[in-house]
Amino acid sequence: MKPKRIVIIGAVASGTKTAAKAKRENPDAEITLITEEAEISYASCGTPYFISDMIKNSHSLIIREPDYFRKMLNVDVLTEHRAESIDPETKRVEITNLKTNESLTLDYDRLVLAVGSIPNLPDFEGVGYGNILTLHNIPSAMQIKSLIRQKKVKDALIVGGGFIALEMAESLITHGINTRLIIRRGQILSNFDKDIALLVQNYIKTKGVQILEEDEVREFKADAEGNVANVITKKQTVPAEFVLLATSIRPNIQLAKRAGIEIGQTGAIQVNKKLETNIPDIYAVGDCVETMHLITGKPAWIPLATTSNKHGRVAGINITGGNDTFPGILGTFVVKVFDWSVAKTGLSEKEAIKNGFDTESIIVPSNDKAHYYPGSKRIIVKLITEKRNGLLLGAEIVGDGVVDKRIDVVASAMTGRATVEQLSKYDLSYAPPYSSPMDPVITAANVLHNKLKGKINSISAMEVKDKIDRKDDFILLDVRTKPEYNSGYIEGCIHIPLNDLSSKMDQLDKSKEIVTYCGVGLRASNAHRILKNAGFQDAKFMEGSMAAWVYKIIK
Amino acid sequence: MKPKRIVIIGAVASGTKTAAKAKRENPDAEITLITEEAEISYASCGTPYFISDMIKNSHSLIIREPDYFRKMLNVDVLTEHRAESIDPETKRVEITNLKTNESLTLDYDRLVLAVGSIPNLPDFEGVGYGNILTLHNIPSAMQIKSLIRQKKVKDALIVGGGFIALEMAESLITHGINTRLIIRRGQILSNFDKDIALLVQNYIKTKGVQILEEDEVREFKADAEGNVANVITKKQTVPAEFVLLATSIRPNIQLAKRAGIEIGQTGAIQVNKKLETNIPDIYAVGDCVETMHLITGKPAWIPLATTSNKHGRVAGINITGGNDTFPGILGTFVVKVFDWSVAKTGLSEKEAIKNGFDTESIIVPSNDKAHYYPGSKRIIVKLITEKRNGLLLGAEIVGDGVVDKRIDVVASAMTGRATVEQLSKYDLSYAPPYSSPMDPVITAANVLHNKLKGKINSISAMEVKDKIDRKDDFILLDVRTKPEYNSGYIEGCIHIPLNDLSSKMDQLDKSKEIVTYCGVGLRASNAHRILKNAGFQDAKFMEGSMAAWVYKIIK
Repeated sequence: MKPKRIVIIGAVASGTKTAAKAKRENPDAEITLITEEAEISYASCGTPYFISDMIKNSHSLIIREPDYFRKMLNVDVLTEHRAESIDPETKRVEITNLKTNESLTLDYDRLVLAVGSIPNLPDFEGVGYGNILTLHNIPSAMQIKSLIRQKKVKDALIVGGGFIALEMAESLITHGINTRLIIRRGQILSNFDKDIALLVQNYIKTKGVQILEEDEVREFKADAEGNVANVITKKQTVPAEFVLLATSIRPNIQLAKRAGIEIGQTGAIQVNKKLETNIPDIYAVGDCVETMHLITGKPAWIPLATTSNKHGRVAGINITGGNDTFPGILGTFVVKVFDWSVAKTGLSEKEAIKNGFDTESIIVPSNDKAHYYPGSKRIIVKLITEKRNGLLLGAEIVGDGVVDKRIDVVASAMTGRATVEQLSKYDLSYAPPYSSPMDPVITAANVLHNKLKGKINSISAMEVKDKIDRKDDFILLDVRTKPEYNSGYIEGCIHIPLNDLSSKMDQLDKSKEIVTYCGVGLRASNAHRILKNAGFQDAKFMEGSMAAWVYKIIK
Repeated sequence: MKPKRIVIIGAVASGTKTAAKAKRENPDAEITLITEEAEISYASCGTPYFISDMIKNSHSLIIREPDYFRKMLNVDVLTEHRAESIDPETKRVEITNLKTNESLTLDYDRLVLAVGSIPNLPDFEGVGYGNILTLHNIPSAMQIKSLIRQKKVKDALIVGGGFIALEMAESLITHGINTRLIIRRGQILSNFDKDIALLVQNYIKTKGVQILEEDEVREFKADAEGNVANVITKKQTVPAEFVLLATSIRPNIQLAKRAGIEIGQTGAIQVNKKLETNIPDIYAVGDCVETMHLITGKPAWIPLATTSNKHGRVAGINITGGNDTFPGILGTFVVKVFDWSVAKTGLSEKEAIKNGFDTESIIVPSNDKAHYYPGSKRIIVKLITEKRNGLLLGAEIVGDGVVDKRIDVVASAMTGRATVEQLSKYDLSYAPPYSSPMDPVITAANVLHNKLKGKINSISAMEVKDKIDRKDDFILLDVRTKPEYNSGYIEGCIHIPLNDLSSKMDQLDKSKEIVTYCGVGLRASNAHRILKNAGFQDAKFMEGSMAAWVYKIIK
């Protein structure tokens, strides 16, 4: 007999998806959805856009009303109910009705935990003052929006540099609020490599976001009404009538732990490919579980709505007697930050090295459309690969051009375990409004393949910066045109335009290390070939050149 | 010793790419580029945008000047020179200087044919009259643009329905020209399935393009000056002061044939994966060659700029003593038609069937972004798969939303030989401005996987139309809301909104075949499940529903 009584705890993305899918698989299933919240099935990813007023009505963020589940799917929905405990022996869940404080018990044949994640609240002194908030659901979004609407917020501080922090920085700037972002390290987006993160960081500074780098909150100070007014940090004191705590989140595992459900090495609930926990008939899905990372082969906790939705389908099939599996994740994501898109798939180079890979990488800026097509914009592609076999390990792509397409292509290639060489020959679509005949990821793959084959010799902007800081004895050669050079150059460089290089290269010491740079790396690459062919012992070009240079420019 | 003397015939995309890559691989190579044209290395794909005035200056379309190749790469460039014959024995090319009519001879160690394609000029009576033109290079684009600028063109006729025809239809409409398009069959885009092609066809009609369907040019009539004035077709006579012949193109193979180079079954030059012809030391690249289709495993001739550029790299490596291969193509392409994007990868269902595949397919309309995000638009995804194993065979995606990203994802998946089930679990990027948590291709893959597994029962809009035309005895059930129904429905349907279905289904005959439809197929799918569960013997839903219905609507 097919299992009939299904209890699902949590009703945002993965919980409601599980319910809907299970009901489609087995219309006779008796399903109960339990949630502490008043709303179910809402798009938490849309909350920053609701706060920025791009989305006017919070109702737009509700995908499905409880009544849809009740009437159309015949799923019982208990909102504002908290699951207190699970007894795997008797297969029962103890529940409290938060409105009446009454207790009730539900029996299950199959139980699904879809309890999501919860914000880590740092224990800064004064963290309990008014207007120090987190953004994790619709009520919290409405609270922030109403605070902004009162127009009393002149200064805001965002604690953290992850993607919610960045989306909210944009929201607050849109409202004309003086916005600061405080990060413990020197870079936002800690899961990105520093070279790419700093490009985004420089960009958002131009949009008016002030970044308190390598700084930490020490204490919040309140006004007479008990609302936050000032923030004392390690380095300074800043005003803030609103503080958003966007530091980090953790999987919500307390209920699972109490029931004896195994927690994995990442701190999230451990499940197999069928999304079963270690306890028979208990499944877990969405942000509260860890899943296999397709590149490392190890468990990873990267909570994303995309994974939650897929989990819901897989669990919905399995709890109704079917057989489906979830293969794992790459952690692909994209975030809009003002006019830039910031995306990643797989591992950053830093993460790849931490996971024991011997890596090679490249940064290649390109136009997102045919260079002559109006509105063509720049994107910067970083590809990371395993040195010994060229297998793709990850990519980071940023810029004001079309980024999401390229990250999805790399993610698709990585799912098929492609090498950079294979990627360089992918048959991707092209017409001038969409791409170049050689798409930016194909170009990047070609350059990285050349690097792996030893056909080119290049170093990153960060390495050049280190060389300068170390006062290495090397020639830094700017091969751009005179007007480009005059618009800003790197300190200590020699300027010889590429066109003049052959005739003027005898000014340069052939025995010295020489690093060429240009606008995006193309001319610099040509220049280093010319120098190499002319007998220079150690010619390299700077990857991405000025487009990847996040440091000081002399004007 | 590495081969030094390289002669490349043809200098648009693949020829110049071959030269540049060869020079980078071996700076000592002595390379000569020969072309009959005055320009080299231009973007022929950009010509429709030059004609529409979106790109003002033809110079923007020139990627590289001959002087760049001469001075920067040290490549000899002979423009306005025609290669007359090749002698593989003596390894010589006979050439005519078209400006002076002088002959010259070039010796080669390696020869590369990059001679492209040429338009098929139909032998309609009067085809030689003035202002009956083709669009195949920059001079022809300038000729068309100058004709339009004279403002004497009130009516134009485009012969053909391929992507150049569609791009040019948009260009001409932009100029306020009354534009007709004549096609021999009932559909534009003959390499698309009819259901998708008709969606595009209906759309461009709304933009003012008149389509003469199942019609053919019989004769052109000229005015007193010998310029075209009227066109007599099989069915009618239409005025036209400008006729664009965009019927078809063919590989340029005459020179190759005369040299004894093998021509393949597609009529294009046959090459192996190294892009070698059957004659030692002669290579061929770009639009003049056929290449292996990655899905059929058979040779295919699908000339595209993307392939040409990749060919150039592979040939450039091989002719300088390296070893690279070109794996094959999917024929992925995208074209902008007014505000729609129209894209395809792999095989259409028609082509798949012709190639012996037992196919299954689905049409699924979706929003390209989160449905609540401002500017979210619709795209329509058709996925084609092999029935027995679910392997992806092709996709066609159209609409005014973001299409190119999705076609590139499917192309990438197909390169990795993915099944629809695998595609449905791809870890693609998501944030509200970019996609839904379930990307449109993932949703389509899920629906198709359900169809393959027999979990859903659906038929295409075209099949429904056939059933209506055949006067089949079946129930057509519209499950939309009353206002939606009132805005237009399919003749002969019964209307019961989904919300009322359970209470009103006893009005319907359970033994009869019943086909449900809604706006995009989602509610129709739910409805057919409800009916099936209620004991209806033969319930189906119409794939894509009204969004895929290209036929008459009753208002």
